[in-house]
Amino acid sequence: MSTSNTGFLADFTVMSSFGATPGGGVDRQAGTPEDHATRSWFSTWLAGHRLREAVDAAGNQFGLAELVPGAPWVLLGSHLDSQPLAGRYDGAYGVLAAAHAVVRAAAAAEAGEFTPVFNLAVVNWFNEEGSRFTPSMMGSGVFTGKLPLETALATQDLAGATVAEALAAGSPASDSAPWLGSIARYAEIHIEQGKILEEQNIQVGLVDRTWAAAKYLVTVDGDQSHTGSTRMPDRRDALYGAALVIAAARELTEEFEPGQLHSSVSQLQVLPNSPVTIARQTVMNLDLRSPDESVLARAMDLLGKRIAEAEARSRTEVSLALTHQWGLNPYSPAGVRLGRAAAEALGFSHMDIMTVAGHDSTNLKDHVPTVMLFVPSVDGISHNEAEFTRDEDAVRGVELLTEVTRRLVRGDAVED
Amino acid sequence: MSTSNTGFLADFTVMSSFGATPGGGVDRQAGTPEDHATRSWFSTWLAGHRLREAVDAAGNQFGLAELVPGAPWVLLGSHLDSQPLAGRYDGAYGVLAAAHAVVRAAAAAEAGEFTPVFNLAVVNWFNEEGSRFTPSMMGSGVFTGKLPLETALATQDLAGATVAEALAAGSPASDSAPWLGSIARYAEIHIEQGKILEEQNIQVGLVDRTWAAAKYLVTVDGDQSHTGSTRMPDRRDALYGAALVIAAARELTEEFEPGQLHSSVSQLQVLPNSPVTIARQTVMNLDLRSPDESVLARAMDLLGKRIAEAEARSRTEVSLALTHQWGLNPYSPAGVRLGRAAAEALGFSHMDIMTVAGHDSTNLKDHVPTVMLFVPSVDGISHNEAEFTRDEDAVRGVELLTEVTRRLVRGDAVED
Repeated sequence: MSTSNTGFLADFTVMSSFGATPGGGVDRQAGTPEDHATRSWFSTWLAGHRLREAVDAAGNQFGLAELVPGAPWVLLGSHLDSQPLAGRYDGAYGVLAAAHAVVRAAAAAEAGEFTPVFNLAVVNWFNEEGSRFTPSMMGSGVFTGKLPLETALATQDLAGATVAEALAAGSPASDSAPWLGSIARYAEIHIEQGKILEEQNIQVGLVDRTWAAAKYLVTVDGDQSHTGSTRMPDRRDALYGAALVIAAARELTEEFEPGQLHSSVSQLQVLPNSPVTIARQTVMNLDLRSPDESVLARAMDLLGKRIAEAEARSRTEVSLALTHQWGLNPYSPAGVRLGRAAAEALGFSHMDIMTVAGHDSTNLKDHVPTVMLFVPSVDGISHNEAEFTRDEDAVRGVELLTEVTRRLVRGDAVED
Repeated sequence: MSTSNTGFLADFTVMSSFGATPGGGVDRQAGTPEDHATRSWFSTWLAGHRLREAVDAAGNQFGLAELVPGAPWVLLGSHLDSQPLAGRYDGAYGVLAAAHAVVRAAAAAEAGEFTPVFNLAVVNWFNEEGSRFTPSMMGSGVFTGKLPLETALATQDLAGATVAEALAAGSPASDSAPWLGSIARYAEIHIEQGKILEEQNIQVGLVDRTWAAAKYLVTVDGDQSHTGSTRMPDRRDALYGAALVIAAARELTEEFEPGQLHSSVSQLQVLPNSPVTIARQTVMNLDLRSPDESVLARAMDLLGKRIAEAEARSRTEVSLALTHQWGLNPYSPAGVRLGRAAAEALGFSHMDIMTVAGHDSTNLKDHVPTVMLFVPSVDGISHNEAEFTRDEDAVRGVELLTEVTRRLVRGDAVED
């Protein structure tokens, strides 16, 4: 059994109907009924393509093609969950492309086109997005030992539901899922979520590094008081303090060359969030990202100064907790070379590219040789219903991932 | 039956135990179990003091002393509901003071100390605070015809529960409650929630005017996109837009003389409020208040200009909907004179004072002659667990309100 490009596009259309939104996107946050419906459809798809399904305790959903009994696995995947009101491609494209690549490569091995030395599997990592349950990349984080399983399962959404409860509403775990020690190679394909491939008119990207990043949790403590009668100099307004922090984070990017620093604050809680009571506390995320580690270091330093100014101006106390930080994190150069060789064999134009966004491959690449591929995004739009990748780019990506998979499964060198 | 000052303080302590918070305040938002428990205790209190209870369809809870069968009513009251994590005094002090004043004045009339020409009632207005169900002053708004009953009952909290459902969980309405046309006079006492009486060392305030105010609902529309990969110039970040609006509203106050303009933003909703997706929309309240109508007019004009700058800078669209506006709204000068005469008869130091905050009396005074009184707040703290009024000030207020009530019930002139 193999698959066609028209079959891939037809599957993508059907898959995009789960959690479909009026604006042409999807809304299927991790563990919601919409996510479970997508997982259930994918389960049926796996069975229809003779891939054995296995689900681990963290909710990661595998489809297995055993080519060499007892051998380690080449694993391909991404995630089917989405942000709220998100696009159809982010993650879901990569899972379906991986599933088709597994089927195509397995068929080629069975047809004797090459001799496999590994087994082959596709994975749908649970909760990559982290919008309902924080942190993001949860399923691959547990799989790679970065996040304890118990911590993940006990994580609550804003309504108090746990990951364990959300998973129990879907398909149960099986005891036959692969584990980290049985994985030999990992590959993932994703839409770029940026404009570089499109602007340079290049067909595929070979991801060689992640941007450096620092992620903070920022808490502003003020004092509740009456919005009307409290004199302005007496106020310790935690929402005004937050506004100064948000503006400072944004305006920090203007102190560097264009493209050298990205910053964002996107989630904010206000207490008590009442129309007639000044906020006593606000809590927000704050991210800084750069393709240059020295820029990031300077930005982190400047952020501290700007926060002190915001504190003084708003008479609040701002605490800045660094929750994650990473440098320019390289992907395996040999993996990049393997991807490049595959693109050249297929005649696709290609370039090395950095990823600003995190991916499940960011977790996997620290443990096994990993190949990360990009296809172009129209206008770079992502986390938006208008996210779009052209059909010809989408199927070209499936073809590239299939060629990469054939090379990985036959044991081409990926060690540096 | 009459009451003592020590009895008043003892009642106040018991009443403050409903919805009590660890920080010494209360949390009993309208229609919650904590609000119903307080209402239920007050119902028992009314019966114990031979006041007949009646509850109207908007949840306003009355205690009636019929002195002159068929005559109109002198009504005294305030509200028992609170902000989240609020102080014990705001509203609740005024209801209990009114209840004691009703009992004392009724006893004096029955003892033949004066001849009543009106009946006498205390009221606990439903949902003055408006934190759970917007708008504020809901019960008195329905009572005075400013808000349709159907609109009030259909109002939902953030969890989707309606006012009708919240009321049904408590005591049922009776068909014997007073209505606007049967009210002859209204009086209310409240803590100042400001520092003026304390700073000037004055015992009681006679409220002669409200500050002028303009209240807006502000919506900022941007575009969802990825917090990491979206280039800074491409972003249309609705939370950054909100931050600029919040800062602009605050900094507007610095363009006027101290005390001439208060502004606040205290409630903000962020969509989708995800850690990795730039906000597509934010919605917030924004208030401007001034003791000078020309200052308010200039501030409203300047706000429009600052909003246009925030829009341009954040590449968002900001819409500013004026939801409420009022000028320097006078209380009846004859009512102020009556309050002043009562204070002088008791030997209390007094001053005329403006109110920045809205009160149920703001609704009533547009329909019936109204007397509004203040007692001092320590440090002006309000909408905060640390809100405090000294016992001697609290009981002095009960005595003043009792004297005002005697004068109102015997028919002293309050027409201008």
